[in-house]
Amino acid sequence: MTQSPIGLAILGSTGSIGRQTLEVVQSLPGRFNIIALSAGGNVTLLEEQARAFKPSMVYATRQDDYVRDTLVGRGRARWAEMEEMAADPRVDIVVLATVGAAGLGPALAALRAGKAVALANKEVLVMAGQILVEEARQNGGELRPIDSEHSAIWQCLWGESNDAIERIILTASGGPFRDTPVEELSRVTAEEALRHPNWEMGKKVTVDSATLLNKGLECIEARWLFDVPLERIDVVLHRESIVHSMVEFRDGSIKAQLGVPDMRLPIQCALTYPERLVGAAVPKLDLKLMPTLTFGVPSLRKYRCLSLALQAGRKGGTYPAVLAAADEVAVQHFLSGYIRFTDIANALDDALSAHDGVTDPKLNDLLAADAWARTFAEDWVKTKA
Amino acid sequence: MTQSPIGLAILGSTGSIGRQTLEVVQSLPGRFNIIALSAGGNVTLLEEQARAFKPSMVYATRQDDYVRDTLVGRGRARWAEMEEMAADPRVDIVVLATVGAAGLGPALAALRAGKAVALANKEVLVMAGQILVEEARQNGGELRPIDSEHSAIWQCLWGESNDAIERIILTASGGPFRDTPVEELSRVTAEEALRHPNWEMGKKVTVDSATLLNKGLECIEARWLFDVPLERIDVVLHRESIVHSMVEFRDGSIKAQLGVPDMRLPIQCALTYPERLVGAAVPKLDLKLMPTLTFGVPSLRKYRCLSLALQAGRKGGTYPAVLAAADEVAVQHFLSGYIRFTDIANALDDALSAHDGVTDPKLNDLLAADAWARTFAEDWVKTKA
Repeated sequence: MTQSPIGLAILGSTGSIGRQTLEVVQSLPGRFNIIALSAGGNVTLLEEQARAFKPSMVYATRQDDYVRDTLVGRGRARWAEMEEMAADPRVDIVVLATVGAAGLGPALAALRAGKAVALANKEVLVMAGQILVEEARQNGGELRPIDSEHSAIWQCLWGESNDAIERIILTASGGPFRDTPVEELSRVTAEEALRHPNWEMGKKVTVDSATLLNKGLECIEARWLFDVPLERIDVVLHRESIVHSMVEFRDGSIKAQLGVPDMRLPIQCALTYPERLVGAAVPKLDLKLMPTLTFGVPSLRKYRCLSLALQAGRKGGTYPAVLAAADEVAVQHFLSGYIRFTDIANALDDALSAHDGVTDPKLNDLLAADAWARTFAEDWVKTKA
Repeated sequence: MTQSPIGLAILGSTGSIGRQTLEVVQSLPGRFNIIALSAGGNVTLLEEQARAFKPSMVYATRQDDYVRDTLVGRGRARWAEMEEMAADPRVDIVVLATVGAAGLGPALAALRAGKAVALANKEVLVMAGQILVEEARQNGGELRPIDSEHSAIWQCLWGESNDAIERIILTASGGPFRDTPVEELSRVTAEEALRHPNWEMGKKVTVDSATLLNKGLECIEARWLFDVPLERIDVVLHRESIVHSMVEFRDGSIKAQLGVPDMRLPIQCALTYPERLVGAAVPKLDLKLMPTLTFGVPSLRKYRCLSLALQAGRKGGTYPAVLAAADEVAVQHFLSGYIRFTDIANALDDALSAHDGVTDPKLNDLLAADAWARTFAEDWVKTKA
């Protein structure tokens, strides 16, 4: 390799996406230089990663003396805030694999510094899409999707002009309850919700895939990533998760991106763009053994969270932030067994109805809406539980 | 529209592709200027087209006094050979919708003059792929596919680098006999062979779609259009003809192009590239009504012509020219009822076995091989009939 290594900051390195990002990095020796790693509470794994990848900076949400000492004590790395990591001159790409609103500050810092942000933390874009897109535009920063759906759309758009897009078609597997009658949804357990048929993911996003709230967030995300109004974004059920998403162009042509469901492929695309490399050992789709591919329309009666998300997206302003924040709280309590699966939609519905939205919100308005929604959802759960 | 109209020469304007090309031209008013039209024997339609599109030059294979008088007599157009049309300075794109070897001279003339050649006449590329590609490379000419499969591959490669291609996957509907047991193929009629389940096409290509010889020719065509060795080109059966073809990249990602089976879309792509325009009224694929998509492996025992084509393609030299020429003759005689459907493969097999191939053939060698194969096939049919 002739070019110098690409500097990476991986925020959220101990989660599912963070770990797979490091797998991709390992599969392409010499190509990347890990400048910074940050984690939440899993400091044991962070320490392991720091030993293997020798970042210059580390951060963990949990930061007692023991943690600081273990991670930075022996002069191996310096403790730094995520915003500092994101803006560091040695960093070319910031992988944002954090969960929830915590990624917002670092995302803005990275874009302001003109970095490419490889985005797995969709809540950030749902919450503050307009602000992020604006920041990127003004400072030469760039948003690259890591979600398999958005990576599919992105790949379909390489070499195409944005104004040729007629429609974006997001595929949805339908999650573990796609064959469960709507009447039975109130009785499903967290354990059942976590059994996703096609993808291995973190818990929160797996539950969001079961409610299809995730797909609604993805519609909002697509709206900002590809500058396409929500009216031109469709969701189709596609059980097999082989077609990761599609773009219809105005001449009637449709492009789709296909592959084995494996997050290492979209991660690698975001890191190596515009190159395609033989990298992580992603299993290849054997077209001769390819299953029958099916497509259908999701029922909005069954998938109420999808409907609510589209509603919030259309209303815009602070509503998407409320949606995402209330969902984080509700899913947490569903996983702990405090509320029922169907209560997630009930909580979101009530939060969106109770919220007094702000049009053209500033960052402060969004953070206030986020905080308001969390409190609202916590209270909502308390009265239910 | 601010740019000046694109000059077109449509060679083979009265055939299926030629007529649809003129439909596309009509659907995009002001965008194209028809400089030249050529036809075979259907001079009545050619006259109609000449009246509607006012070309400066016309040509018909049939050229008795009456034809010449009708077409050029009133000073509306000048009679010109196809090579002259192809090289005319007012022509930007030559649409090659001729059938068989007749398109070879005009194709070379166009590429030598640095034109874009929108290629529907696949035999030309099968016969003389290397020479055409070389001519294009040396003179800044360009080959654009019109076949739906190759257009799909081409579209999937926009914005991609050629060395990222791992594999090209051509889809095949399987034709009208896909559910016919191999033992019954010797008894099928021309009428049955012409009933293609998904596409409306000319007779010759419809029979070639029934034998899958067409798909074999397409593999050879893809080899030259996209500079990918035959070993990296696969054929999968896909009954629905919705996925028009796919490209697998070396990172494991697959891109597919989908749409309603309608040749006006690939024609329009070839004419408007790199733009996508709302043009011909191509029906849109309704994803919510999208059928189940199936994929399978074609049986080489059943589809012997596919196997023979791949053999000829691997041997290279003059063998593909022999294959294409012998097939033209054999299909003609099958359509006239002189030989059986399965005799097409028998004739090709015998022709390829009897042929004494030339490696690194010059144009003369290819034309000689073409002539040899036609004579061989005619004789073969005579001894059978």
